[in-house]
Amino acid sequence: MPLPDPHMNGRRLNESIQTMAAIGATAGGGVHRLALSPEDGRARDLLASWIAELGLELLVDEMGNMIAEYPGTSAMARPVMIGSHLDSQPFGGRFDGALGVLAGLEVLRTLREAGVKPRRSILLANWTNEEGARFQPSILGSGVWTGVYSLAFGHGRVDAEGVSVKKALRGIGYLGGAPCRSRPLYAYLELHVEQGPQLEATGNRIGAPRGIVALHHHEVEVLGEANQVGPTPMEGRRDALAAAAEMILAVRRLPSEMEDDMVATVGRIENRPNVHNVIPGRVLFSVDLRSFSDSRTNRAWDLLVERIQEIARRHGCQAKLTTRARVGRCVFDPRLVALVERTAQSLDLPVCPMVSGAGHDATHMGRVGPTAMIFVPSKGGRSHVECEDTSPEDCEAGANVLLRGALSLAQEGGEP
Amino acid sequence: MPLPDPHMNGRRLNESIQTMAAIGATAGGGVHRLALSPEDGRARDLLASWIAELGLELLVDEMGNMIAEYPGTSAMARPVMIGSHLDSQPFGGRFDGALGVLAGLEVLRTLREAGVKPRRSILLANWTNEEGARFQPSILGSGVWTGVYSLAFGHGRVDAEGVSVKKALRGIGYLGGAPCRSRPLYAYLELHVEQGPQLEATGNRIGAPRGIVALHHHEVEVLGEANQVGPTPMEGRRDALAAAAEMILAVRRLPSEMEDDMVATVGRIENRPNVHNVIPGRVLFSVDLRSFSDSRTNRAWDLLVERIQEIARRHGCQAKLTTRARVGRCVFDPRLVALVERTAQSLDLPVCPMVSGAGHDATHMGRVGPTAMIFVPSKGGRSHVECEDTSPEDCEAGANVLLRGALSLAQEGGEP
Repeated sequence: MPLPDPHMNGRRLNESIQTMAAIGATAGGGVHRLALSPEDGRARDLLASWIAELGLELLVDEMGNMIAEYPGTSAMARPVMIGSHLDSQPFGGRFDGALGVLAGLEVLRTLREAGVKPRRSILLANWTNEEGARFQPSILGSGVWTGVYSLAFGHGRVDAEGVSVKKALRGIGYLGGAPCRSRPLYAYLELHVEQGPQLEATGNRIGAPRGIVALHHHEVEVLGEANQVGPTPMEGRRDALAAAAEMILAVRRLPSEMEDDMVATVGRIENRPNVHNVIPGRVLFSVDLRSFSDSRTNRAWDLLVERIQEIARRHGCQAKLTTRARVGRCVFDPRLVALVERTAQSLDLPVCPMVSGAGHDATHMGRVGPTAMIFVPSKGGRSHVECEDTSPEDCEAGANVLLRGALSLAQEGGEP
Repeated sequence: MPLPDPHMNGRRLNESIQTMAAIGATAGGGVHRLALSPEDGRARDLLASWIAELGLELLVDEMGNMIAEYPGTSAMARPVMIGSHLDSQPFGGRFDGALGVLAGLEVLRTLREAGVKPRRSILLANWTNEEGARFQPSILGSGVWTGVYSLAFGHGRVDAEGVSVKKALRGIGYLGGAPCRSRPLYAYLELHVEQGPQLEATGNRIGAPRGIVALHHHEVEVLGEANQVGPTPMEGRRDALAAAAEMILAVRRLPSEMEDDMVATVGRIENRPNVHNVIPGRVLFSVDLRSFSDSRTNRAWDLLVERIQEIARRHGCQAKLTTRARVGRCVFDPRLVALVERTAQSLDLPVCPMVSGAGHDATHMGRVGPTAMIFVPSKGGRSHVECEDTSPEDCEAGANVLLRGALSLAQEGGEP
C-alpha cells in the first residue's frame, strides 16, 4: 500500500514555535520556563487549546504528563508515540523541547487536514520536568511513566524552596487523574535540536543518533580551613579553592587521556564563606562525565578520584566525593535509526549518524518500545542559553522527517 | 614624676567580652554582628550603658562613630585615643574588634576606680563599619573621621539590599549629631588580636607591629561561552571556569616568585549560570595581594595581569580586570612602637616586632596623630571565623599593655 504523502505547513509550525516562545520570554531572546512554574502552566494551557482545536482527546496523568491521541483505524495495534517537553532551562532557549512537542502537534494537524487515518494511533506527549533545573532528577515525567521511578518518588521531589512536584502540579492545575503508567508502544520517535556543533560543522541537516551517552554526575566537597587572608602566611594554608582549582583542571584534562568521545565538565561551584578577604574553607563542585561507553565513563571517574585525593592531600584539605547519578548509555533501536536516515534521504536532506551527548525523554522510552530520535542543527552548537537557535527551514525539515517517519511506522502492519 | 600603677581587673574584662559576644552569637560559637545591623545596634547600646555607668560623656557622630571622653587635667593638651570596632565579619569571631573596644573601656574603668587623673584626656572610640562585610569599603567610620572619605561618600555606601549607611544608621538610632571630623591626637593606640599564627608559633604574648601591609583588592571577570555540556566537544570550548581555575593557581603561586612577605588570595568566586550541565560562561573572582612594600605589591599585580591575559587567550576567553582598592602600606610611629615593646617588657610579657597583615582602623589614624598597635595571640592563627579565640590571660595581658601605654602617653608633658 503506497503511503499517503501529506504536506507539512512549515510556516504554521514556526508560528507555533514563536507563539510558544513568548511564554516565559526573556529580554535576551530566550525562554525562562521552569518545570511546573506559572509559565509552564501557561505553555501547557496553550498546547491543550491547540489540541482541543483539533478535536483530539487529551489525557493529563498524575505526573502532569500530557498525552493526546490521534486515533488509528486498528484499536488493537500498538500506537506510535512522538513528543518531547515544554519546560526549559533557567534562561534557556526557545527550541530545546518545544520543537519536538510543536512539530508533533503539526504532524497531527497535517494528518487531520489531509484526512489521513493511519492504522496505528499516534500519541503526542509533553513530558513533565525533562530539564531537571527546578526539580531533580531530570527526565522525571517520562521516568515515572516508564516505571524507572515510582509515582511517590516523582511527587516527592522538592525544589530549592521546598515545594514538592505534587504541590507544584496542583498549583498550576496539572495534577491529572489518569494513572502515570506506560502502555506498550510500537515506536517512540522524538525530534530535538542537536545542542552541539556537529551537524553545522559537517553541513548535514538531519542527525540520526544511534544512542545517548552514559551520563555520570558526581559532586566533590573540598574541606580546608577558612582564615583571614592578610595575616595568614602562604605556607601552611589549607585553601579549599586553590585545591578545587587544581581539581577542576584535572577534570578538564581527563578526556585527553581517555580514548574517544569523552567530555568532562565542572559546571557548578559553591565557595564558602566567599568573601574576598577570607581564605576559602569549603568548596563544593559538580563533575559531569559523559561518553558512549559505560565502562570508560566508570574508569574515568576512578582515575579522577585518585587524582582528587592526591591534590586534596597536597593542599592539606579533605575531599568528600558523592555520586549523584550514573545513567548508563542508551542504545536506540537500529531499525528505527535506519528509518530516520532513509526518511531524511528520501527528502533530500543530508543526514549523518551520531551519538547524543545530552539526555532526553527518549532515554527512558526504550523500556516500553523501540525508540529513536531526529536531530536538527543548533546554530553555533549552542543550547541551554538564551541565544539557542535553529533556522525555520531546519525546524521544518526535522518536522517533515518526523511526519513521514511516524506515519510510515503508524501504517506498518504485522505484529499488533 | 612616677607613673601611677593601677591594677587591671582581668576577670571583669573577660566578662565584658563574654557579655558582648552574646549579642549576635552564632551556634558555632562565633558572632554574626554586621555593621549597623540590629545586633550592632544592641552592641552599641550595651557599650553606651557601660560608659554611662562611668559617668562619662559619649559623643555619637554623623557616621555613628561612638567616642567617650575620660577627661584629663589639661584642657589644652591633645588627647590620647584608644579603641577599635564592635562590628564583625559574617559568622566571625568574638575578639576581632570587640577586644580593643572593651579593653579600652576597662582602661577607663580602671583609671576611674583608681582615681587617676592623667594630664591628657583619654578618648575611647568604637568605629563604624571596620569590617566592610555589609558596606564597602572597610574601615569606613575612621576613614570619614580622618578625612580619607567625605561624609557624603560614607553616608552613600549601600549594602547588597540597597540600604544606605545613612538609612541604616537612622534605623538603629545611631545617626548622631556630632560632626564626623577628627581632632588632633597626641597618640592613637589600638589593641587587637593578631589574626595570624606568628605570636603563637614564636611563643610571644605581645606583638608590636611596625606597620600594616599594602593591601590591593582586584577583580577578574572571565567571559567564555555557556553551552550544554554533553553535546559540546572539549575542543573549541570556551569554559570560563576552567580558565579561572588556571588563573587562581597563578595567584596561588605568585608569592613564591616574589621576594619576602607577600600573600595572594582568591577568596570570592561567582560562576554563571552555575548548573552542573552547562559549561560556565562567566566567572568573576577577587584577587587580594598584600606585602609590606607598595612597589612590590604593584609589580606582583602587573605580572599577574600578563599571566591572566595569556591564560584567557589560551582558553578562548576574555578577561576584564578591575582594581577595587589599593591601600598603600602604613608605617606606625617608631616611638610608639618602641613604647609598646618597652611596656610589654616591663610587664614581663615576651614581645616581638612584626607587620600586620590585616587592615585596621589604625590604618587611617596615622593621618591625625602618632599611631601604633598592640597584638595578642590568635589561637591557631585563626580569625574571621566562628572559632576565633584568644585566651583570657592574653586578653588581660594585652589590656594591661594598653592601660600602661595609654596612661604613660597621657601623662607626658611637653608639646600640647
